[in-house]
Amino acid sequence: MPFFEKLKESILKNNSLLCVGLDTDITRIPEFLLAPFRTETGDANPNPILAFNQQIINATSPFASAYKINSAFYEAYGELGFDTLRETKKCIPSYIPVILDAKRGDIGNSSKMYAKAVFEVLDFDAITVNPYPGFDGVEPFLQYEDKGVFVLCLTSNPGADDFQTVGAIPLYIKVAKAVAQWNKKKNCGLVVGATKNELLKEVRKTAPDLPWLVPGVGTQGGSVEQVIKYGGENLIINSSRAIIYAGKEADFAVKAGESARRLKDEINRYRRNI
Amino acid sequence: MPFFEKLKESILKNNSLLCVGLDTDITRIPEFLLAPFRTETGDANPNPILAFNQQIINATSPFASAYKINSAFYEAYGELGFDTLRETKKCIPSYIPVILDAKRGDIGNSSKMYAKAVFEVLDFDAITVNPYPGFDGVEPFLQYEDKGVFVLCLTSNPGADDFQTVGAIPLYIKVAKAVAQWNKKKNCGLVVGATKNELLKEVRKTAPDLPWLVPGVGTQGGSVEQVIKYGGENLIINSSRAIIYAGKEADFAVKAGESARRLKDEINRYRRNI
Repeated sequence: MPFFEKLKESILKNNSLLCVGLDTDITRIPEFLLAPFRTETGDANPNPILAFNQQIINATSPFASAYKINSAFYEAYGELGFDTLRETKKCIPSYIPVILDAKRGDIGNSSKMYAKAVFEVLDFDAITVNPYPGFDGVEPFLQYEDKGVFVLCLTSNPGADDFQTVGAIPLYIKVAKAVAQWNKKKNCGLVVGATKNELLKEVRKTAPDLPWLVPGVGTQGGSVEQVIKYGGENLIINSSRAIIYAGKEADFAVKAGESARRLKDEINRYRRNI
Repeated sequence: MPFFEKLKESILKNNSLLCVGLDTDITRIPEFLLAPFRTETGDANPNPILAFNQQIINATSPFASAYKINSAFYEAYGELGFDTLRETKKCIPSYIPVILDAKRGDIGNSSKMYAKAVFEVLDFDAITVNPYPGFDGVEPFLQYEDKGVFVLCLTSNPGADDFQTVGAIPLYIKVAKAVAQWNKKKNCGLVVGATKNELLKEVRKTAPDLPWLVPGVGTQGGSVEQVIKYGGENLIINSSRAIIYAGKEADFAVKAGESARRLKDEINRYRRNI
């Protein structure tokens, strides 16, 4: 099934536009999960990150339309991280699509290999890619008709103003326009950060039909109300830290579930089409 | 030792500005290396990519100032690829710096984890990064004073004209200017593709002191003469496919060594400072 159809179904099933981001940092997970890891007995809980993710997923999946796994946080743990990435994906109910947030992008010859890694070897449903190298760097990902390709357009960080938002026709507008043209197989979306309200309207005007993946609410300060107001409902809103680190104690997963439900409900308060 | 000092020493030692790119594709390595892999006996040669790289490195290292390992080609083989990446790095003589061509780039929180992965877990000497997210996306890499950070400026592919070369002040010029300012710790360089001669001069004018990593000669058609003419000698020129696939038979490594030596010599013919 094409990615955006699978996403539409999970949005309907869970009545949610919430994407839960699994940016799991071993220095921020509850102490008690680390204990067996630290003693190096290895038997009881050899992989605290996986144990954490598994409980977070169980608690949040009724409220999520998608999960986004941030590749950086797994690459930082070498082989163990690679294994955790694969195993975490298996913990997610199969009806919920999973995006690898990897921001890959290179010339065509290399992007073809990145696409193979993410869509074939790891079998993710979608990826985030970087448009800097231009069309032939993104095209190998687009070849996979049933996979989703979210192209970086407007990021949620302060550095967005270094290159993306400057110029007579700013880069983020050029990218939005280009991706709308690249979307022949209806498998493209945009990454549009929630922190720049006034620019969201411009992106929506430039590319009315492209779905968005929206990071930047929660810890980064973006407003759900403004995102829906300017971006509409053809989008999913990601939250990572505000959900997965909602609790630090034995009930951390319960807290994460509550936080996910609250954000899902908050988003729905601003929706018209539910 | 800081990356660019290590690089300077290897340039002097081997009298070479050649960077050998290990973009190893299992479908392009000699048949006979695959045989034990295909029969799955596993004992004789369980990892043909590593066997290939090892011989290529032995044959080319006298002519190389650096190696560039293209992460995409290893990620495409999952766990085996990860292992091959680590083992390949160990085959390279320790006086020659090794660049991971990974084109990473995200907001600061995530870039910090990518930097940890590449500089701490894998211990590469340098990385290529993507400037799209802006300064705070690149800054976590710059924190590692002894590591090199090559920022994508002008790529060697046709898609470079989609975003990089357009506008009153084109993006590649904005990036060159910014990176010159970010270079407080003298650990920055630029990736400048060899295929656009007329623009090389502009990059050099904009950032006179930044070292370049230059892909795009050989298979992609860039000219060594033009690169040196417009870029000067504060650079290394990468060649991947034209070197590592120079031969297909039992003497493939000899052929690769000859190809590396020829390109090293060709580059030196245009240099003044040797």
